[in-house]
Amino acid sequence: MTKGLKQRIIKRAATDLEKVEIALEHLLNPNLELVKEIASHLLFSGGKRLRPLLMIHSARLCGYNTGFEIQFSIIFEYLHAASLLHDDVVDEADIRRGKKAAHTKWSAPKVVLTGDFLMARALDIAAKAKEPDIISVIAKITRDMSQGEIDQLTKKGKLDLSEQEYLKVIERKTAVLIQGACQCGAILAKVEKEKEDALNQYGFHLGMAFQMADDLLDYTASAQDLGKNPGADIREGKLTLPLIHSLANASPEDKAWMQDAISAVEFNPDQFEKLKEKLYAYKGIEYTRKRAQGHVKKAKACLDGFGDSESKQLLCLIADYSIERKV
Amino acid sequence: MTKGLKQRIIKRAATDLEKVEIALEHLLNPNLELVKEIASHLLFSGGKRLRPLLMIHSARLCGYNTGFEIQFSIIFEYLHAASLLHDDVVDEADIRRGKKAAHTKWSAPKVVLTGDFLMARALDIAAKAKEPDIISVIAKITRDMSQGEIDQLTKKGKLDLSEQEYLKVIERKTAVLIQGACQCGAILAKVEKEKEDALNQYGFHLGMAFQMADDLLDYTASAQDLGKNPGADIREGKLTLPLIHSLANASPEDKAWMQDAISAVEFNPDQFEKLKEKLYAYKGIEYTRKRAQGHVKKAKACLDGFGDSESKQLLCLIADYSIERKV
Repeated sequence: MTKGLKQRIIKRAATDLEKVEIALEHLLNPNLELVKEIASHLLFSGGKRLRPLLMIHSARLCGYNTGFEIQFSIIFEYLHAASLLHDDVVDEADIRRGKKAAHTKWSAPKVVLTGDFLMARALDIAAKAKEPDIISVIAKITRDMSQGEIDQLTKKGKLDLSEQEYLKVIERKTAVLIQGACQCGAILAKVEKEKEDALNQYGFHLGMAFQMADDLLDYTASAQDLGKNPGADIREGKLTLPLIHSLANASPEDKAWMQDAISAVEFNPDQFEKLKEKLYAYKGIEYTRKRAQGHVKKAKACLDGFGDSESKQLLCLIADYSIERKV
Repeated sequence: MTKGLKQRIIKRAATDLEKVEIALEHLLNPNLELVKEIASHLLFSGGKRLRPLLMIHSARLCGYNTGFEIQFSIIFEYLHAASLLHDDVVDEADIRRGKKAAHTKWSAPKVVLTGDFLMARALDIAAKAKEPDIISVIAKITRDMSQGEIDQLTKKGKLDLSEQEYLKVIERKTAVLIQGACQCGAILAKVEKEKEDALNQYGFHLGMAFQMADDLLDYTASAQDLGKNPGADIREGKLTLPLIHSLANASPEDKAWMQDAISAVEFNPDQFEKLKEKLYAYKGIEYTRKRAQGHVKKAKACLDGFGDSESKQLLCLIADYSIERKV
């Protein structure tokens, strides 16, 4: 069923996705071969192009269909890639999309600077739209994402992280970019404020659902599906909703065991399995899935004011896919 | 004489500089206290505010004087600071402006992300000008600076670095930002293309002179004046013009000695003094100073088309100061 959903999206979006791939490479245009190499390592390693697709179909939903939306959508994949490159240094994660993270192949400084380069390319494309509001949205995205990541870093290993704190972190680090992509589609189409807000809110709820699903997958997916070992969050001291909810509902003994497990320097597969059992037992998994489903429902409701169209159907499919996916 | 030049500039610019300091703090506006702390560590550690001053007086030279130029000029100090924060990770330099570099006090990821935050703030201010051309200039600045740094990194320890390669590196890593600040002053003032180009070229030549002077100071200044130990470039494997020119003119024996010295892992003060003697003997110091003076002369000539004014005088003083300074 999930695979069906993904394939339905890909089938509907195939022509756009092809054009996006070409534009991603064409617009990169660096002076240095090395920059191309580092940027391409991440850019062309099987990303889903979710953010460009959302931007393109938000614009079309608002009646914009000049072709420029393809080029313009690249902004959001470049911003996403720039943030991943800066995150690679942040997370010290070694595997990204099933490949070695860029910073294990090249020095951290080169990776950071390639992120800056991608940010610059995104800006250059944005300038072409001649819409200052779009620059403000990109500024907000960058401001919130950087602070969301810093916030998450400072809260590493914080055993009493609240659901509220978690929600703020994922809003900044994930939702804001998806939200911005959808909103910019509306701005490009110059629609009324109401529709722009509706797409902004669609993006917000989709982004929240997407990150919650990600946080679930880190517990529930297989290493093969995930392209990296599950349990990465907990190994990095990141408390996510399944765990936060379970901790809040666990018996004192189980809570103490879970907190010890989280704080342990080494974390063996048996402990991870036992932790997962607790997350199921204390309904952390179920609760997170329900919260994510709630956001998907709200996301789709944001589109109620738009007439039926190919783009609306696709945006609804993407919302469903955000929590049904296995990767 | 030099001190006199600096004081004349500060006296003329005192009111603006005060307003710039206030705006730098006021516009920072982060959500997280930690971001403020990391950003402030660098921002308020005695920067010269050269780039804001250049932007302000480029705008005024073109007749723009609404007061917004103060706020707008902050863009270029934030961009500069963002690049220094990313450079701190790049250079692994421990001392910056006489203080410990940010990355020795905070983890590299937090420093990188604070750089991203400053970039975002710069964009937010830029968006307020509602001039897409300004965004294109900022995109160019970021694109060139990131690639200039990567280029310099890949050329670390390259013993046969040519003067041409050196010029390309310093243009990208330094001149482009100063050039962009001056050009954006003109764009803000909506002057004709000819004047915009003149200020762009003024900024280019000033930037080249400024970096050459910096590269000279790394050999000729005292640790006290410099706020860090001289010889940092050579310890990091960065070949700059004084050395490049001297290598090209040295006797085979001296060339071999110099190349050995550069490649040596450890570099003692005696060797550094001996290297400096060679740079004087083979006129690397003199040549670099002359090249820098040539750029200052060209910078000032770019202002010929503008009538006399306070701002023109200040821009000329800054050009002179760029190579007369001791820090």
